[in-house]
Amino acid sequence: MARRRDPFEARPVVSRRGGAAKEPLSRERIVDQALEILTRQGLDAMSLRKVAAALDTGPASLYAYVADIGELHALVLDRALGKVDVRATPRAGWRRRLQRLLESYVEALSASPGIARLAFGMAAVGPNAIRIVEALLGILADAGADRATSAWAVDLLLLHSTALVAEHADGLEPAGPDGALARGILRASAREYPRVYAARGDLLSGTPGRRFTWAVDVIVSGVLQTPVHSD
Amino acid sequence: MARRRDPFEARPVVSRRGGAAKEPLSRERIVDQALEILTRQGLDAMSLRKVAAALDTGPASLYAYVADIGELHALVLDRALGKVDVRATPRAGWRRRLQRLLESYVEALSASPGIARLAFGMAAVGPNAIRIVEALLGILADAGADRATSAWAVDLLLLHSTALVAEHADGLEPAGPDGALARGILRASAREYPRVYAARGDLLSGTPGRRFTWAVDVIVSGVLQTPVHSD
Repeated sequence: MARRRDPFEARPVVSRRGGAAKEPLSRERIVDQALEILTRQGLDAMSLRKVAAALDTGPASLYAYVADIGELHALVLDRALGKVDVRATPRAGWRRRLQRLLESYVEALSASPGIARLAFGMAAVGPNAIRIVEALLGILADAGADRATSAWAVDLLLLHSTALVAEHADGLEPAGPDGALARGILRASAREYPRVYAARGDLLSGTPGRRFTWAVDVIVSGVLQTPVHSD
Repeated sequence: MARRRDPFEARPVVSRRGGAAKEPLSRERIVDQALEILTRQGLDAMSLRKVAAALDTGPASLYAYVADIGELHALVLDRALGKVDVRATPRAGWRRRLQRLLESYVEALSASPGIARLAFGMAAVGPNAIRIVEALLGILADAGADRATSAWAVDLLLLHSTALVAEHADGLEPAGPDGALARGILRASAREYPRVYAARGDLLSGTPGRRFTWAVDVIVSGVLQTPVHSD
């Protein structure tokens, strides 16, 4: 497989668009426009062709700035992750800082279903993603985790947070009181599924926010007890 | 919103297909056929029209058995989950049984990218899903978790396992040595991102299997320390 071009490598481009009538093209403007289309119309609508049309130019002009749709996806995801606040007050304890950072991450990805789908469908590797990893490694070090364990913990925490957002991206709330999950669980008979029957209230309890806070606490507590190199 | 029909409620249908030339239609046959299309051609190809054509009938004949594509999705997902082995030897310790069950779950969903996408896109609520929840509740009770905490833990463990499969469903391996993740991390400079730089080996280390086992250990250890009702 050919090595793909790195979308985050600096590659200065001089716009060939002449005259004063049009604002010159730039990566900044292309990504802005793509994010707007993604937010309003969803992931499948965000094509190079549509972005070019919205910028009143042809797709060919875009290729000097963005190699292909994969590169556009990577750039737009990183732009969206720019909204994540990694600078929670350092005086707050690590547990509070961890919750805040991940809440901010979830909020940024929840901005639209398209962003959530984008984040789940690809590895986030732009500068803003690396900034988030850097901050998480710092918080986990403060919590007392060693470096190798912190590294794996970052992956686990981000996978969980991203999955949670992506799961709800299509607007379905399977956990709602009349949702499919509730009906599935309430259908379970005491005779066939005694544990599910007994726990049916617990299986459906809790707001998404309360469950998220709990899950982050669970993961970090487990991480502190489960070093990657246990020998 | 109108309450949707429950696809797992028993609704006997007598096939109107006469004669001996054709095997009579049944839910069983429809789901078999749909699963085959899903496995070979992917989720977007699994339409009622295609299933009907493969069974040499028209879509209208199918509607007596399956109300719509959503119902077909639910039935096919539950069929796929039928392969999950929930009866690991009871003499094995709870930790081993938990790992085995979740490995079996991951394996069932990894059978094809279409199944992985299906599982991530909807709540699994058929009899086979409930059977898995029942088994997990039993294992977590043996581990010493209370009922409410076990209930939330089941959700967390299944979300993690499902997300992991779905993340790899498109065949991309972002964590591979020449993948986007490696390039993103290796691009990070020691000056700007000192922690990422120092942990770059750890961030990319470990096989998927080793990371999965570790993550399950982390979650269950955390669960045992984080009761849902801590008062």
